[in-house]
Amino acid sequence: MPNHPMEEIFHPQSIAVVGASDNPRARGYSFIWHLLEHGFEGKIYPINPKYSEVLCIKVYPSLREVPGSVDYVISCVPASAVPNMLEDCSNKGIKAVHLFTARFSETGRQEDAELEQRILKQAKKGGIRLIGPNCLGIYYPKEGLAFGYDFPKKPGPVGLISQTGGMAGGFIQLASLRGIYFSKVISYGNALDYNESDFLDYLAQDPETTVILMYVEGLKDGKKFFDTLLEAASTKPVIIIKGGRGRSGTRAAASHTASLAGSMKIWETAIAQAGAVSAANFDEMLDLAVSFCFLPPIRGQRVGIAGGSGGVGVLSADQCEEAGLDVIPLPTEMREELKSHGVPIWDWVGNPIDSSILSGFGFSGTSMLQTMSKNQEFDLLIASIYEGTSTRKKDMLSRMRDEVNGCIKVKEESSKPLLVVVGEKNLSSEDHNHWRWKEIREVRTKLLAANIPFYPNVGRAALAARKLIDYYQRRA
Amino acid sequence: MPNHPMEEIFHPQSIAVVGASDNPRARGYSFIWHLLEHGFEGKIYPINPKYSEVLCIKVYPSLREVPGSVDYVISCVPASAVPNMLEDCSNKGIKAVHLFTARFSETGRQEDAELEQRILKQAKKGGIRLIGPNCLGIYYPKEGLAFGYDFPKKPGPVGLISQTGGMAGGFIQLASLRGIYFSKVISYGNALDYNESDFLDYLAQDPETTVILMYVEGLKDGKKFFDTLLEAASTKPVIIIKGGRGRSGTRAAASHTASLAGSMKIWETAIAQAGAVSAANFDEMLDLAVSFCFLPPIRGQRVGIAGGSGGVGVLSADQCEEAGLDVIPLPTEMREELKSHGVPIWDWVGNPIDSSILSGFGFSGTSMLQTMSKNQEFDLLIASIYEGTSTRKKDMLSRMRDEVNGCIKVKEESSKPLLVVVGEKNLSSEDHNHWRWKEIREVRTKLLAANIPFYPNVGRAALAARKLIDYYQRRA
Repeated sequence: MPNHPMEEIFHPQSIAVVGASDNPRARGYSFIWHLLEHGFEGKIYPINPKYSEVLCIKVYPSLREVPGSVDYVISCVPASAVPNMLEDCSNKGIKAVHLFTARFSETGRQEDAELEQRILKQAKKGGIRLIGPNCLGIYYPKEGLAFGYDFPKKPGPVGLISQTGGMAGGFIQLASLRGIYFSKVISYGNALDYNESDFLDYLAQDPETTVILMYVEGLKDGKKFFDTLLEAASTKPVIIIKGGRGRSGTRAAASHTASLAGSMKIWETAIAQAGAVSAANFDEMLDLAVSFCFLPPIRGQRVGIAGGSGGVGVLSADQCEEAGLDVIPLPTEMREELKSHGVPIWDWVGNPIDSSILSGFGFSGTSMLQTMSKNQEFDLLIASIYEGTSTRKKDMLSRMRDEVNGCIKVKEESSKPLLVVVGEKNLSSEDHNHWRWKEIREVRTKLLAANIPFYPNVGRAALAARKLIDYYQRRA
Repeated sequence: MPNHPMEEIFHPQSIAVVGASDNPRARGYSFIWHLLEHGFEGKIYPINPKYSEVLCIKVYPSLREVPGSVDYVISCVPASAVPNMLEDCSNKGIKAVHLFTARFSETGRQEDAELEQRILKQAKKGGIRLIGPNCLGIYYPKEGLAFGYDFPKKPGPVGLISQTGGMAGGFIQLASLRGIYFSKVISYGNALDYNESDFLDYLAQDPETTVILMYVEGLKDGKKFFDTLLEAASTKPVIIIKGGRGRSGTRAAASHTASLAGSMKIWETAIAQAGAVSAANFDEMLDLAVSFCFLPPIRGQRVGIAGGSGGVGVLSADQCEEAGLDVIPLPTEMREELKSHGVPIWDWVGNPIDSSILSGFGFSGTSMLQTMSKNQEFDLLIASIYEGTSTRKKDMLSRMRDEVNGCIKVKEESSKPLLVVVGEKNLSSEDHNHWRWKEIREVRTKLLAANIPFYPNVGRAALAARKLIDYYQRRA
């Protein structure tokens, strides 16, 4: 994308951190640390008249003193010091500034909001584009840019545009547990200059990004946003969380990023009309990211369910139906096949498959899942790998290993969308090495390696599937 | 409860396992193993003409051969062998039989349903009460009765009556991760004789049980059940999941436990009228069990929210409101207190508390939570302990430790209901020893030790709180 106006922000040859610090708890230290940690190959210029060296890098008293050119500035100075800093930027021909600096309009005070506006005017006059204020900026692992400690160095195909930085950081870590890695993440805070539409337009055109995630509290320009969204959603899936949906959430959004939240109903309709997908929270957004990244398009709603004994099946069927999926009866040809193999319970087995009644007939839940994967009557499959109630450890382990291997086989041999349910666990320090939960971790490791998406419960898997079906139906 | 007719089932002096086996994968082996594993102190009589010894215990060829009396029989023989076994029971004066034996009416075949009815008649004639068929029976850790491998030996105050055995077993393990242990668990399958109402009546009167959980697919006698429920719910909280809610779930329930599921709306209304609490699935039931066990009554819906930075607060407020809680503005006296301490952002801080804006003023999210706990305007508090985006490992660890210690302090010093949010994690084998997730486990360990209930996300905490509020309001 050599022609996109935003491209230079993601490829700086030199970065100045204004308000650099030698205190490891300060962002003026950690932004430099992150660049080193992620192997940023350009020049780093810490700026602060108080120091001569931070993290073994020479510190300059001001931007004016920096010998070479500067492509990108990260500002950690207080709000009141921003005008002088921008003056220096403008004199040095610096084109892009990330304002980590906060306490502007989000405080709710008039003088802070006025300062923010003066800064915008000053930046425009000086030809400077701003990210923020009140945000953590950019994570772009491929180029060594990051805003949180210990972020993954591995890049991936998912882009995230987030008005919150703290939650974005937590999400980046959580997402990696389910195999989701990022092309670019932008925490953009108050969106004073560059806003949600600019970043969305950029990621829509970005060849490194195949799925776009967004967390927005308010829109700077509603019309522009929905025009951009329509365009973006026509090229790749866009999943959006709206923060500040209710009375108190709206109040919180105002004091968080000075956003004015709008009516939720109008919002949801507009999102759907634009062809994007709405998510209620980061958990659901992760389910959707995992689904879009690892599943082929789901073309219909007829689901086959396998894994777990009777009760798991009953509640799975309920939750799939409640999410709008169609739990069809077991196809006649599958029954006939069982009958021809001499399985005496051929007329009893149904969908969901109750694996506990199959034992002893040479048919397991896993083999039934494989048969389902070859049957045209199913549009998608949901398989639960569940600890259940075994007679002993060895049996539980061998059953769970059979099940995960069965899922991998289905993934290898069939193009049917397969969603696997493996529970999250509230492990404490005492139980995390228990063989039971160790095995669950093994299951997740194998699924991750096979690129099979997993979900913590059937309800979440079913909801994600439903949203994908709607998405692909709208596009068809 | 010496007078309850069901009491003897839970206190057998001798148990016969008919259809005993030396194959560790068979239930005829594992039921004996569980009795040994849990230190059952009565006599154990394995019955099978094929063996002389199983697990170093003498095996008798038939019940007739057993020298002493038998209080309780666990039947692992095939369905067709049950009539002969019942004949022996009746001749020996045995009063209670648990039929693990399955493949009766749940197969959907007429001959199986007819055999089931003949067995019921025969049992009645012989003065024998039945648990099951098609179920795993009883877990009563205090007396050494159990039906699954590696069940906790520690007893607790929660009773569970479940039409599914497999899920009940998984739930017992999961519940222990959040501090929930059991008085008695009954897996009762097809409810041919003793049914949901009998067990509910028993647990309602059981002094060892303070909270009752139920999973039912169908009711044997609707009127009796709701009469019993009304009585039970007047003495202790009763939480119920209905399995088989939709078309396909109903079909699955029929082939699981031969239950006829009814209309969900009528069900929910009747449950509420009886003063009980409805749960959609086992995850929600666990949230509710944790809430009733560890929280004082919640008397109103005004919630104070702390922990996490801006975005966490915005989405927390949204989700609390969506669950029907009232996220009130920060009380004036709290603002005034901040002002009097010279905190310059006194007018900006709100509810939810954004901990990221407080740093540097000697006020943390934790100290604000403590202030909230003393303020009468809040009926309950929800605090999130969230990994977030730290500048470095050390800071994240010290912040999280501060937060958990703050929660413990609030619990010690105040009677305000406090719900803590600590995320579950989809850990794979590779990441489970990462310091980040290790610390989350430490947090859970400390909360468990302090009897503070925790929930995997704000939405689930808020929903549980709302249901408790409704429960206590209906009782008031």
